[in-house]
Amino acid sequence: MDVISENFSHGGVQGVYKHVAKTTGCEMTFAVFIPPTRETPPPVLWYLSGLTCNHSNVMEKGEYREIAAKLGIAIVCPDTSPRGDDVPDETDNWQFGSGAGFYLDATQPPFSVNYNMYSYILTELPELIDKKFNVNMSRQGIFGHSMGGHGALTLALKNPKRFKSCSAFAPISQPTTANWSVPAFEKYLGQKNKEWRKYDAVSLIEDGHLFPEFFVDQGKADSFLEEGLRPWLLVDACKNAGIKIELRMHENYDHSYFFISTFMKDHLHWHSSRL
Amino acid sequence: MDVISENFSHGGVQGVYKHVAKTTGCEMTFAVFIPPTRETPPPVLWYLSGLTCNHSNVMEKGEYREIAAKLGIAIVCPDTSPRGDDVPDETDNWQFGSGAGFYLDATQPPFSVNYNMYSYILTELPELIDKKFNVNMSRQGIFGHSMGGHGALTLALKNPKRFKSCSAFAPISQPTTANWSVPAFEKYLGQKNKEWRKYDAVSLIEDGHLFPEFFVDQGKADSFLEEGLRPWLLVDACKNAGIKIELRMHENYDHSYFFISTFMKDHLHWHSSRL
Repeated sequence: MDVISENFSHGGVQGVYKHVAKTTGCEMTFAVFIPPTRETPPPVLWYLSGLTCNHSNVMEKGEYREIAAKLGIAIVCPDTSPRGDDVPDETDNWQFGSGAGFYLDATQPPFSVNYNMYSYILTELPELIDKKFNVNMSRQGIFGHSMGGHGALTLALKNPKRFKSCSAFAPISQPTTANWSVPAFEKYLGQKNKEWRKYDAVSLIEDGHLFPEFFVDQGKADSFLEEGLRPWLLVDACKNAGIKIELRMHENYDHSYFFISTFMKDHLHWHSSRL
Repeated sequence: MDVISENFSHGGVQGVYKHVAKTTGCEMTFAVFIPPTRETPPPVLWYLSGLTCNHSNVMEKGEYREIAAKLGIAIVCPDTSPRGDDVPDETDNWQFGSGAGFYLDATQPPFSVNYNMYSYILTELPELIDKKFNVNMSRQGIFGHSMGGHGALTLALKNPKRFKSCSAFAPISQPTTANWSVPAFEKYLGQKNKEWRKYDAVSLIEDGHLFPEFFVDQGKADSFLEEGLRPWLLVDACKNAGIKIELRMHENYDHSYFFISTFMKDHLHWHSSRL
């Protein structure tokens, strides 16, 4: 692991690091915020970003450091996909390839070589974090935005013992039926098949995966709300499965980090009380 | 004035706007945050950015909206220079031209046609803000970072009736004797002459300009501290002139927005109590 930068901020250290990852077959960059030192190592909260983003968007615009410092939470912000000259991509398509890994393990060549973000987030990056940082890996939560909010939901549903808390900003609820994600699923996983349900929050819940509770914020002025995000699908699935969910719908707020940063504090408090 | 974007955030509206400016002879972009509506129009706090920045750096990384919303302060973030194909520039020089207007009115051709950021900030942009936004122009404060912290100091010293408060993050104290600014002053204002002192905070104080008090934050790990910023020069000048100044030196903090965002809250509270 190489240090790209480390900056003191809000009493803690905001770092950016890179390493060569086996699961994705390329160099991966990620950000870690370590809060001011306390008696015990801090819990770890994973933030998964949305389409087109990398580690830096939430690091720069998310406004999480002040509260994470106060609450004593480490924040890990991975990239959203493999990247590099050797990674197959569609550079003119923001809904597939670079910046659009959908936190799944691709089965279709040539994408299956690199597009294994599920395994990267689930196993490889946590092992590195555990090795390189003084954090408490027995206390982990996960949240994210849009594609990353959905990634957080699916990772939590499939790994409820690892993640003690899960929340999301404007998550995609059912990517297997949304027009902006179906083409990517076809390329990563092949024509619709049983693999798809493993990376779809609503399908996972329908298939019996459980999690104690979800907390979701959604802007009513979000241009992706009606066709792409559809949080009512998630709420319905949760209700049918007996999963507790709090969905807050906010007047005037859109899909941007101006929305995320407004409600970041609430999410950090929510996770902190559960970690 | 055209609206580039308006996003709801922390209960207020973060906008980005552009207009054709006479003083700089080009299209100028700026950001305005309007806090949630109250009974009376909000005071206006000007934030001047540093070298290489434009309106967006502090808007994205400054973490000012939550507190500005709570305190009811409008924040105006201008660009740091004229820009465009018709504006003379040295594209490979980050200390001159685009992103490096030094908040002065150039006297030397060809730069004197466009590089009039002093007049732009002092007269043209405030007139537009007054006309287009429901704010209270009789309550104005000013702050900024580095070159912009210095710009805030000089604008306040020369216009103490307009600005009721002034603070700075890691300001340049005496650009007329610092190696990263002298070449720009020579190009904008000609070989060292009396014009230089009009755009130099320490010189202005030495020449009798007064202001009630300054508040300055400075990181001790700032790589520009010793040669470029030298806050002790400002403190000495203030002491000699009887100007109250509070300088806080912070261990470990550098010159970045990770530093600025950490102490943004303190500056907003400081201005709010004086506006």
